[in-house]
Amino acid sequence: MEAKKAAAELAVAEIREGMIVGLGTGSTAYWAIQGLGARVRNGLNIQAVATSEASENLAKELGIPLIAFANISEIDVTIDGADEVDAAWNLIKGGGGALLREKIVAFSSRKLIIVVDESKVVAQLGAFPLPVEVVKFGYELTIRRLRALGCKPEVRVVDRQPFLTDNGNYIIDCNFGSIPNPAGLHQAINGIPGVVETGLFIGMASQVIVGYKDGSVERL
Amino acid sequence: MEAKKAAAELAVAEIREGMIVGLGTGSTAYWAIQGLGARVRNGLNIQAVATSEASENLAKELGIPLIAFANISEIDVTIDGADEVDAAWNLIKGGGGALLREKIVAFSSRKLIIVVDESKVVAQLGAFPLPVEVVKFGYELTIRRLRALGCKPEVRVVDRQPFLTDNGNYIIDCNFGSIPNPAGLHQAINGIPGVVETGLFIGMASQVIVGYKDGSVERL
Repeated sequence: MEAKKAAAELAVAEIREGMIVGLGTGSTAYWAIQGLGARVRNGLNIQAVATSEASENLAKELGIPLIAFANISEIDVTIDGADEVDAAWNLIKGGGGALLREKIVAFSSRKLIIVVDESKVVAQLGAFPLPVEVVKFGYELTIRRLRALGCKPEVRVVDRQPFLTDNGNYIIDCNFGSIPNPAGLHQAINGIPGVVETGLFIGMASQVIVGYKDGSVERL
Repeated sequence: MEAKKAAAELAVAEIREGMIVGLGTGSTAYWAIQGLGARVRNGLNIQAVATSEASENLAKELGIPLIAFANISEIDVTIDGADEVDAAWNLIKGGGGALLREKIVAFSSRKLIIVVDESKVVAQLGAFPLPVEVVKFGYELTIRRLRALGCKPEVRVVDRQPFLTDNGNYIIDCNFGSIPNPAGLHQAINGIPGVVETGLFIGMASQVIVGYKDGSVERL
């Protein structure tokens, strides 16, 4: 946890007065939001948008001012975690189930800072099963299409129930083993009707900060 | 209405014993389901899947047996309407708000028969505003992205409330005026996080049947 915390604090140091900041979801984003809260208490003026109810509630507790999407056209910086980062800074996200909201916010951010611990840095994506958000209607057909792309798809289950995203959809965890062409795979999956979004974030990260077990932090 | 009914009956004549049939949504599909119900009463054995609760309820009333998606791998024939059909049989659908379910079913159908009246046949798509289904979260950002593609986007409103699809999403009606490159536009829109699906059906129709005011029917 110290590795993530140290890396998150380096990311938070990039936030400047007056910025609109996107708040990610998950354990790394937790530390980033904590760090941001400390800077706000010390007088920093920013406004934030959150990618999940959990992050929104944490921001509120810490006194970070939130702004509605209707009132912004762009986000200056978003800080978020990832499940895998490859050498080209392509990402797999969605282990926490918030991939769609995270991607919507990232897509409208001028800068996306990804904070991870060293275990998430890989040569090639795909050992982590790719989360894909799909609508409930006809999901059995959608799963067949996903399987035809060469993966083992599984409906995510939590407490013996199919997991539902904040948007009321299912997550299908697609085990590809390896993903040699992330951009092509994203296109292929996104072209299946019934797929809302994939956990592949292609060319979206502007910066990657890695925390190591020994407490050191590296900007890739 | 006679034009649609006559064209729908020609489509229904294509259904053979033992088929799995996809039921569209809307006024043309209404006539197709009625015609199918009449054939079932006369002894035709088929099973059907529906693209909306309205079509499902109508099928039940008429005694058409329904089958769950879990129990099928493919649909033999789907009969559905369209809001516009161009010379290459590309379609705009979604005026009725069921575009996502219609596209999921069409995508898994070996044959998609489109039934329209003559007013829907156009040289180029785009006079009819393109329906795009988007998630509620951050829809203001999604609308900005749609506008940047050159359209006038409007959140669909019914009874002074934003219209919600069967999947709990908004429909944004995107007035492009004309769409010279439907496949390219579909890709561009579908690449926006927050977009669930577009109303462009590219290369999906296997047959188009047109009903004319004078009562005649033409297979294109």
